[in-house]
Amino acid sequence: MSFAEAMAHAHPGPVGASDALIACIRACVDCAQACTACADACLGAENLQTLVRCIRLNLDCADLCDATSRIVSRQTLIGPELVTAALRACAMACQLCGDECERHGAHGMEHCRICAEACRACERACDLLIPEMAA
Amino acid sequence: MSFAEAMAHAHPGPVGASDALIACIRACVDCAQACTACADACLGAENLQTLVRCIRLNLDCADLCDATSRIVSRQTLIGPELVTAALRACAMACQLCGDECERHGAHGMEHCRICAEACRACERACDLLIPEMAA
Amino acid sequence: MSFAEAMAHAHPGPVGASDALIACIRACVDCAQACTACADACLGAENLQTLVRCIRLNLDCADLCDATSRIVSRQTLIGPELVTAALRACAMACQLCGDECERHGAHGMEHCRICAEACRACERACDLLIPEMAA
Amino acid sequence: MSFAEAMAHAHPGPVGASDALIACIRACVDCAQACTACADACLGAENLQTLVRCIRLNLDCADLCDATSRIVSRQTLIGPELVTAALRACAMACQLCGDECERHGAHGMEHCRICAEACRACERACDLLIPEMAA
Repeated sequence: MSFAEAMAHAHPGPVGASDALIACIRACVDCAQACTACADACLGAENLQTLVRCIRLNLDCADLCDATSRIVSRQTLIGPELVTAALRACAMACQLCGDECERHGAHGMEHCRICAEACRACERACDLLIPEMAA
Repeated sequence: MSFAEAMAHAHPGPVGASDALIACIRACVDCAQACTACADACLGAENLQTLVRCIRLNLDCADLCDATSRIVSRQTLIGPELVTAALRACAMACQLCGDECERHGAHGMEHCRICAEACRACERACDLLIPEMAA
Repeated sequence: MSFAEAMAHAHPGPVGASDALIACIRACVDCAQACTACADACLGAENLQTLVRCIRLNLDCADLCDATSRIVSRQTLIGPELVTAALRACAMACQLCGDECERHGAHGMEHCRICAEACRACERACDLLIPEMAA
Repeated sequence: MSFAEAMAHAHPGPVGASDALIACIRACVDCAQACTACADACLGAENLQTLVRCIRLNLDCADLCDATSRIVSRQTLIGPELVTAALRACAMACQLCGDECERHGAHGMEHCRICAEACRACERACDLLIPEMAA
């Protein structure tokens, strides 16, 4: 069991942690790290000049995933409106960054290919948690 | 001239920094710091138990203002969709946190009163930048 | 293979990612999330008033682990001095937060017990990476 | 009066906020934003390839200034050891990033020149707060 899952189940609050919530925490944390690493790998790549848009999106996506990972990690007095707005912004960043990384991944940039996977997984995890928040 | 304004004008890109952009950077940075300080001041207050919702919102608002301050500080290849989604989430957090802080501010919690001001200013600055992004 | 490990190996730079580096990235990311969740679980606990120091340390530790996880995720032109200073600060935060959480964990606070584990693991991972940076 | 100063004075704790503390909060917040903006301005510059080390240091410095700005913004149960470790890491990042930015600033990169100023101011503010923490 990951620390994220163990912590979510150990929360003293009345509402238990759903599978979708735990999956979203993990996905945001993984995507934030992958995007930080991808921006750095692009910075060290030979074709740096062609990767400017990718780095820009990586940095934005890392920042939104980071903020969202913190917000969804909090189970005390959840405010559905605020969480939903964060999840929407995060899913949007993951979609745009995933699209850009996928393109470079298809041209042999292995780190972009892996980062695109992390972005897709995070976009899905956010999209799956949004309806649960509205319920 | 603040560092934020000087940096925004020094950007080498073709598009200059608007007043709304510079105001939004400053407001996000100030609100993130105020919310971090407000959560901590609440933590040190005698009536801590009545401030749980305020702390929760302070922490979320700080994280979203922080992420948004970074995103709006980036002027290279701005993606209006992503920036707008971040601004919306940030404005929502500022509105909710501002409402909560304002209530405690009206009951003599001075740090909540000041933090509510920072939240209101940031909500306004985000709301003013959103239409400019769509243009 | 985790995203962190896959990304570390996919970096285009001349220096490969060591096991200690990959372990440290994971440990920092896990500890940042655990500390954010622990601060929130403490905030929702009945004995909140006895957990003020724990929340304070959780928040500081989360912020330092977060910054350090980003810094060690970057493999382009690593500056050993800067990385070492970040690792030292992170290890110090993990030690202090781990001590505090361990005490509450021994008194039945399950989320503090788990968070203490994450702090210990992160402190160790930072301590193991420091000599490698100096080499 | 800035929000940072007003918030620091409004803290309910027994210990008042010193001038050095307030100055350090402001300097960390300003430097984090300047470094984020400098990394982005470098990314949009024509001579991007010569600015890789600058971007790398900007990103690290922004992350450490951000974490440190949050830690020094917290006045509840200050732990001098942890704060000092954070200040040392932050001062080190500011020194290295300031050196790099200064070099590019001397060659006409205006955003690097301004960012170097923010780094120097933050390094000084951290250095001035360290002895106060030890007292």
